[in-house]
Amino acid sequence: MNAADLAALETPLLLLDEARMQRNIARMQQRMDALGVRFRPHAKTSKCAAVVQRQIAAGAQGITVSTLKEAEQFFAAGIDDILYAVAIVPSKFDHALRLVRAGCRLTLLVESVAAAEQLAAHGRANGHRHRVLIEVDTDGHRSGIPPEDARLLAVAAALVDDGAELAGVLTHAGSSYSLNTPEALEAMAEQERAGCVRAAQRLRAAGHACPVVSVGSTPTALHARRLEGVTEVRAGVYVFFDLVMAGIGVCGVDEIALSVLATVIGHRPEAGWVITDAGWMAMSRDRGTARQAQDHGYGLVADVQGRAIAELSFGEANQEHGVLQWRGAAGAELERLFPLGSQLRIYPNHACATGAQHPAYQVLAADGTLACWPRFSGW
Amino acid sequence: MNAADLAALETPLLLLDEARMQRNIARMQQRMDALGVRFRPHAKTSKCAAVVQRQIAAGAQGITVSTLKEAEQFFAAGIDDILYAVAIVPSKFDHALRLVRAGCRLTLLVESVAAAEQLAAHGRANGHRHRVLIEVDTDGHRSGIPPEDARLLAVAAALVDDGAELAGVLTHAGSSYSLNTPEALEAMAEQERAGCVRAAQRLRAAGHACPVVSVGSTPTALHARRLEGVTEVRAGVYVFFDLVMAGIGVCGVDEIALSVLATVIGHRPEAGWVITDAGWMAMSRDRGTARQAQDHGYGLVADVQGRAIAELSFGEANQEHGVLQWRGAAGAELERLFPLGSQLRIYPNHACATGAQHPAYQVLAADGTLACWPRFSGW
Repeated sequence: MNAADLAALETPLLLLDEARMQRNIARMQQRMDALGVRFRPHAKTSKCAAVVQRQIAAGAQGITVSTLKEAEQFFAAGIDDILYAVAIVPSKFDHALRLVRAGCRLTLLVESVAAAEQLAAHGRANGHRHRVLIEVDTDGHRSGIPPEDARLLAVAAALVDDGAELAGVLTHAGSSYSLNTPEALEAMAEQERAGCVRAAQRLRAAGHACPVVSVGSTPTALHARRLEGVTEVRAGVYVFFDLVMAGIGVCGVDEIALSVLATVIGHRPEAGWVITDAGWMAMSRDRGTARQAQDHGYGLVADVQGRAIAELSFGEANQEHGVLQWRGAAGAELERLFPLGSQLRIYPNHACATGAQHPAYQVLAADGTLACWPRFSGW
Repeated sequence: MNAADLAALETPLLLLDEARMQRNIARMQQRMDALGVRFRPHAKTSKCAAVVQRQIAAGAQGITVSTLKEAEQFFAAGIDDILYAVAIVPSKFDHALRLVRAGCRLTLLVESVAAAEQLAAHGRANGHRHRVLIEVDTDGHRSGIPPEDARLLAVAAALVDDGAELAGVLTHAGSSYSLNTPEALEAMAEQERAGCVRAAQRLRAAGHACPVVSVGSTPTALHARRLEGVTEVRAGVYVFFDLVMAGIGVCGVDEIALSVLATVIGHRPEAGWVITDAGWMAMSRDRGTARQAQDHGYGLVADVQGRAIAELSFGEANQEHGVLQWRGAAGAELERLFPLGSQLRIYPNHACATGAQHPAYQVLAADGTLACWPRFSGW
């Protein structure tokens, strides 16, 4: 690390450890290769073409997005196999079609007969067969159709049409985020796999080809022991990891590639406080570790080299002020230990949320050089 | 309102009710005029030149900002009297000086002898006298020097220099956010006023002119009964208001000018869930009402006209999914009550945090026309 270069930068800023990120990319891709499935990373975490290009270079096939803005931006960056993994609604059909007309191989998602019928009608009216997956619910945490539900076949029937083509099924076991043992994560990965494969089997028994069986979340992808019947896996946050993932047990803090670089702007020795310029605007309001065994407040404070400072907790945040509480001895020494203008690194609870607060990554390469990679936001 | 125009828009988006905003601007300005003080709105809430121009047109004199990026953007938009109200550190001195050299009348803030000395040295080295306020702590909630603290005079002494000019004192009674009765807010406003005026008196007794006495927060500004000795008041969130402010008792829900327009993308009738495309990315993770008497989850759900729907609570959010829980009877009717593709408006807990998630405001004028006002982000 070139601390001299960092010290000259105005903070707060989003710091990306490139070597850690590359290790995270390699770890997941090797696992997917060993399990014999395609890997389609979720680009909502980085919203950055340079990051996604490295995932593709490592072996990823296509990407997953959570907004059409992401599809648009990544398609403009040269990625043409894109899965929009949020149930689409009519006000977004034309936007999706524009991307297809421009040459994007865009796959859409529905979970209701109403959406399937309206999407098929839109395709017919525009002379295009939308490529569509059906969202399957395998853990009751959000949306989708349970594998045994009668609606599954009704939605599929609405997609056999000149305006829509049923490409397969998709599920996301988001409830894996509330687990924290290898055994529970392994069981959830199997539940996710088995439920999605079961939905595909029912569709095939009804005469649908159902070529795609897409599953995934970072915790289940890293704990699946077998993926028979699955054709592709999706995961997002693994590329950076974060404190929530560390709390779940899928990474160590020393694998977290993302941090916020902050500067000490003040002290309240009598209260044991160190004030920095990284408030909730820089960290986000995400308090994802609050429900875990180890609550990290607004983030885990580390020195500029990335080594955690156990005695300094980040309990309060205003918009542009972070209030760090010193829990060690000799509070009167705070101004000497953390002088005005000195820098700290703060590991985030949730990489997707913290990243979204920033317009760019400052990328620190293994050789100590710095680069700036822009990221986008909005819809 | 022109609901037909809204229905054509892709969501989620940030909707601004212009008439409500104008009423909020007028209410605060009239109050400040009646109290005989200058008003310097905090532009961190809107980060939008069109909003700030309306505050200036109503009588505001200069603005407050929380980052130098805000100073830069608003100076570029023609506002040249800017107070950067976060304690400055050396890595930001050059940036501040560039703004001054370009013609901005920029006032800075310090709260330590170290910062005052380094800033004065920077000014001397560059042939400029930085204009500086000292941050005073009147409620122990964050940073600043207590009025009776010996450091107050030491910091002031460091600012009597060719490189720095002591312009006055500033305080922000941020702990007003945890109060909820008119009496407590009135008492906090008086505490804020008295503490800041006391600091100015001590400085004047020591021979400093101390022309500026700057106080403020939205709750105290709206509850101050007298402001003797105060020269200017700052407040930010009043321009839009939000659910936290409603919980404190300084506005009604029908005065909240900001909401997120969302679209229904799915249902889980058996769980009583309506799924929308406004997740935490659109709302922010701010759960500011969680500590208030009325916890609004991730926001208060309303129909597209802005009328609250009491039976629909917003308890869970994923990145691009909002999970609304129906608490009324006849859950099986959810798909009829809130059809796929229909729109909802969601009032935010915290306008500053929710606004920051969006690249622009869709501004709905009283005559039903829509306009787009960009907002900026980052540092």
